[in-house]
Amino acid sequence: MPTYTAPTKDMQFILHDVLKISEQTIPGYDELDRSFTAAILDEAGKLAVEVLAPLNPVGDAQGCTLENGAVRTPAGFKAAYDKMREGGWIGLDCPEEFGGQNMPYLIHSAVGELFVSANMAFNMYQGLSHGAISAILTHGSDQQKATYLPRMVEGDWSGTMNLTEPQCGTDLGLIRTKAEPQDDGSYKISGQKIWISAGEHDLTDNIIHLVLAKIPGGPDGVKGISLFIVPKFLVNDDGTLGDRNALSCGGLEHKMGIHGNATCVMNYDGATGYLIGEMHKGMRAMFTMMNEARLGVGLQGYAQGVVAYQNALGFAKDRLQGRAVTGDAAPDKPADPIIVHPDVRRNLMMQKSFVEGARALVFWGANLIDQGHRSNDKSAEDMISLLIPVIKGFLTDKGFDTTVLAQQTLGGSGFTKEWGIEQFVRDARITMIYEGTNGIQSLDLVGRKLGLNGGKTVMAFFEMVKTFIKENEGDPALKADFLNPLKAASKDLQTAAMYFMQAGMKDPNNALSGSYDFMHLFGHTILGLMWARMAKASGDALANGTDDPGFHETKLATGRFYMARQLPMTGTHLARIQTGGATVMALEAADF
Amino acid sequence: MPTYTAPTKDMQFILHDVLKISEQTIPGYDELDRSFTAAILDEAGKLAVEVLAPLNPVGDAQGCTLENGAVRTPAGFKAAYDKMREGGWIGLDCPEEFGGQNMPYLIHSAVGELFVSANMAFNMYQGLSHGAISAILTHGSDQQKATYLPRMVEGDWSGTMNLTEPQCGTDLGLIRTKAEPQDDGSYKISGQKIWISAGEHDLTDNIIHLVLAKIPGGPDGVKGISLFIVPKFLVNDDGTLGDRNALSCGGLEHKMGIHGNATCVMNYDGATGYLIGEMHKGMRAMFTMMNEARLGVGLQGYAQGVVAYQNALGFAKDRLQGRAVTGDAAPDKPADPIIVHPDVRRNLMMQKSFVEGARALVFWGANLIDQGHRSNDKSAEDMISLLIPVIKGFLTDKGFDTTVLAQQTLGGSGFTKEWGIEQFVRDARITMIYEGTNGIQSLDLVGRKLGLNGGKTVMAFFEMVKTFIKENEGDPALKADFLNPLKAASKDLQTAAMYFMQAGMKDPNNALSGSYDFMHLFGHTILGLMWARMAKASGDALANGTDDPGFHETKLATGRFYMARQLPMTGTHLARIQTGGATVMALEAADF
Repeated sequence: MPTYTAPTKDMQFILHDVLKISEQTIPGYDELDRSFTAAILDEAGKLAVEVLAPLNPVGDAQGCTLENGAVRTPAGFKAAYDKMREGGWIGLDCPEEFGGQNMPYLIHSAVGELFVSANMAFNMYQGLSHGAISAILTHGSDQQKATYLPRMVEGDWSGTMNLTEPQCGTDLGLIRTKAEPQDDGSYKISGQKIWISAGEHDLTDNIIHLVLAKIPGGPDGVKGISLFIVPKFLVNDDGTLGDRNALSCGGLEHKMGIHGNATCVMNYDGATGYLIGEMHKGMRAMFTMMNEARLGVGLQGYAQGVVAYQNALGFAKDRLQGRAVTGDAAPDKPADPIIVHPDVRRNLMMQKSFVEGARALVFWGANLIDQGHRSNDKSAEDMISLLIPVIKGFLTDKGFDTTVLAQQTLGGSGFTKEWGIEQFVRDARITMIYEGTNGIQSLDLVGRKLGLNGGKTVMAFFEMVKTFIKENEGDPALKADFLNPLKAASKDLQTAAMYFMQAGMKDPNNALSGSYDFMHLFGHTILGLMWARMAKASGDALANGTDDPGFHETKLATGRFYMARQLPMTGTHLARIQTGGATVMALEAADF
Repeated sequence: MPTYTAPTKDMQFILHDVLKISEQTIPGYDELDRSFTAAILDEAGKLAVEVLAPLNPVGDAQGCTLENGAVRTPAGFKAAYDKMREGGWIGLDCPEEFGGQNMPYLIHSAVGELFVSANMAFNMYQGLSHGAISAILTHGSDQQKATYLPRMVEGDWSGTMNLTEPQCGTDLGLIRTKAEPQDDGSYKISGQKIWISAGEHDLTDNIIHLVLAKIPGGPDGVKGISLFIVPKFLVNDDGTLGDRNALSCGGLEHKMGIHGNATCVMNYDGATGYLIGEMHKGMRAMFTMMNEARLGVGLQGYAQGVVAYQNALGFAKDRLQGRAVTGDAAPDKPADPIIVHPDVRRNLMMQKSFVEGARALVFWGANLIDQGHRSNDKSAEDMISLLIPVIKGFLTDKGFDTTVLAQQTLGGSGFTKEWGIEQFVRDARITMIYEGTNGIQSLDLVGRKLGLNGGKTVMAFFEMVKTFIKENEGDPALKADFLNPLKAASKDLQTAAMYFMQAGMKDPNNALSGSYDFMHLFGHTILGLMWARMAKASGDALANGTDDPGFHETKLATGRFYMARQLPMTGTHLARIQTGGATVMALEAADF
């Protein structure tokens, strides 16, 4: 069975040495000193390690079952959910007026990594709720907030997001679910939604579905979509549960992974729903939550990599096989631990340097979200909007790759269920697909985000890189190992962006054929920036006489690997992009 | 449920237009004209499509079960096996004197692709037998051949290979299974073997296990390993089955994929075994079969990619979602098929250009094996020895990646069991691990094969590339799109090889830290050569007035994509290699 250790030391390093959060002026950040965040992370880590992680293989093996319309979650999930609820974790970053703890989103994200690494399928139940809570907070009327939020924040009730239908996922303009207006101001919702995560389960007393539907007579396509609150049990005026609403789970998907989470077909048969936000502006309402939702999926991607890497590392230290080429490392044993072999080492360094860089990026992203929301900082909000498709697309692609690498470290054991690594591969796979496939992320990046504010936001990113390099190039070690590769990567990124502007004007296929490579080029560049920042922080710590020099030396060595071994990928991505759409679009569909 | 179509037209193109097999002077090739190979491929394709493919999801869902020591294969496997046996497919390339059809290994491989794409787990039963037959053919005594081969070639009996033990997979010097000599010349075999594919099942009357074990008193390590024939049922002098031997299946592995194949723990409790080949030379006996076995796994890798791609393509043509950026492609429909979108197209082209290039490589490899065996051509044997780690390592890595890309084409449907693509991902994953992990392949390539014949073999490869370029650079289209990128890739490969010789002398970690990248650099270069050859063949066909110009135009367009979009990877691999071992080996094991 796999093991999990909460990487709180690495988290603290990013929060305090890199982001220096307690020096930031964002409202709510003033209390975030080292001991405060340590206490939270330790407590969350305990829950993750002791309660959630042991249930991860159980959830995978048992899955969810549907009987007479009721979904049973795997054994132990309900008890674990109650512990999470009682610990106040569900409303961690929710407003105090609805029972939450009003913590920054950054803290919610750090805690989230612990929960997701321990048990992704389980954590999705509250993850989906979190999205629904955000939607009601942002778009709900006062009465809607008062009716639903306190119970949802407490975790007594949960929430879902209902977008996909059989004929549409990406292209929501095609949805057919109908919302017929009723005399009392409510709507009758009818239609079928599929792939609804946590659509039905036995963890909470009520489930508050947020459903995209069309009010007849509205505009065609995405402009005619509205968002509705459709509770499983209607709520009486006194807050007690009333009638069962006319909705039901019509089936469970059988999936490659995340078996512990119920992925439901949801049937709405004239269910009572309440419009939330403006009529026909449902897509806009969804979009306002998208940054958080997509950052959360990017987090899932690398968090699966974190736990997979931990297990690969443990195996590589224990497993005796062959001898080091430079002389026996463990002469008293029948063979050396496989971590002595350069190719095993390369594999582990790829995993380690990715997950630590990814964590820095997601924490920075969450920090930007706080800056946007709590400090009303428009430029921070724009910057995170630019980064989001990269965070979601690049980190889930590479997070999945990391689980595959970790599985490879274990050789044949990695393929067996007994060792449990293969579950991380299967669970991580969905992150590249849901919340907008990674192809869609790359379109969002190239088609929408590059041009944000007339290109000013991406220019601000380049400026940030340039400034960081300028401020630090007096340090020769930092310059050679970190700043020079970062500069080269950033140049490749700018060249690619320039290519899109020029060649994309002639034929949009020239730009769109390179969108995926651009997303990865951007990803490597940002992770290069993250590593340069971490190297700077560790260099400062060493210069200032830290009491843990080994930690910082390791950080620097890990970063050097990423810069030397991963940043060269930007050259290949640029070369591909510059070939344009010619070879991509050459064939007629019939000729394939 | 996924579909499968036998790609016989593409196969015929490689056999006849590229390799021009009927013009080759290899014994047995003279009868291989177009209509002859067409007849074989059509017949095998029918079996694959009608019988094996429908059983693939059945095998995945049911898996194998162990009850009272007996393993039951999934429903339908026995009947399908009987059809395969009755069709004479099992002994296709075996000598006529033992009941085979003496076909070239190339034909066996082409047929193998069809069977593996249709149902990899099923085909492994006969695949393992094939390895055991080869071992007995090469190393068995006349009596052993007469006793076992006729029944194995016919398919009444099957065979297995028993190498791995709990404490060792890669490092076979650590094996503990013992073989005690008996007065009658036989041995008593005792020990436990794990991960034995097809170790026990209900498809055949007898199972002939080939088991690596140590005779007490022999040399330590790999030099003291011998190979034994250990039948499930002992064979009487008249060829009838005698006593049950003292061996049993002690358990089945629960695995990520290939559920239809029984992966067994095999316990040998003083089982009667017969030495095959020389005492203490068991490893050498295994090695002589390794080229074929590893080529077979490389084939499995891309063959899973083939069927995954076919299903991704079908989905992309059917699924309506969004509109083409250059104007509606299907204005009469609610949306365009997703194949219009450049990023979907890019994804499909990556799949298509890989599997077609990989097929050319494996067919060429099988052709070289025939040249070596049937024409006693030492240089062909050396060339395939050089290529084998690339065929196994590169094609399985990229074959797996191809299944992941195909899954991505399907979006959320790709994650569901209903569509069946996710099974290809799970099944393909093992090919990167077994028959020597891909890390081991890269060590074999850099540590052993590069220096083969004092480097003459790799020089012969470079010479072959050079000659091909020289002979064809008069064709400007071929030169610009194919020969120039091939030349650049080949130069990167030579530079990397040179780096290994120089830096590796100083510190072997410099070479070994780059072995994996070198394997991929080599892989892209070879696939570049394959595409250049295919382009040449298609160009010739068009110049000579083919009656199917569309086929050849498509081939050229697919090749152009590979050259433009995939060959730039050689630059990144070279850059990584040239950073040497410094960043890879920097950390102490304890510092990870």
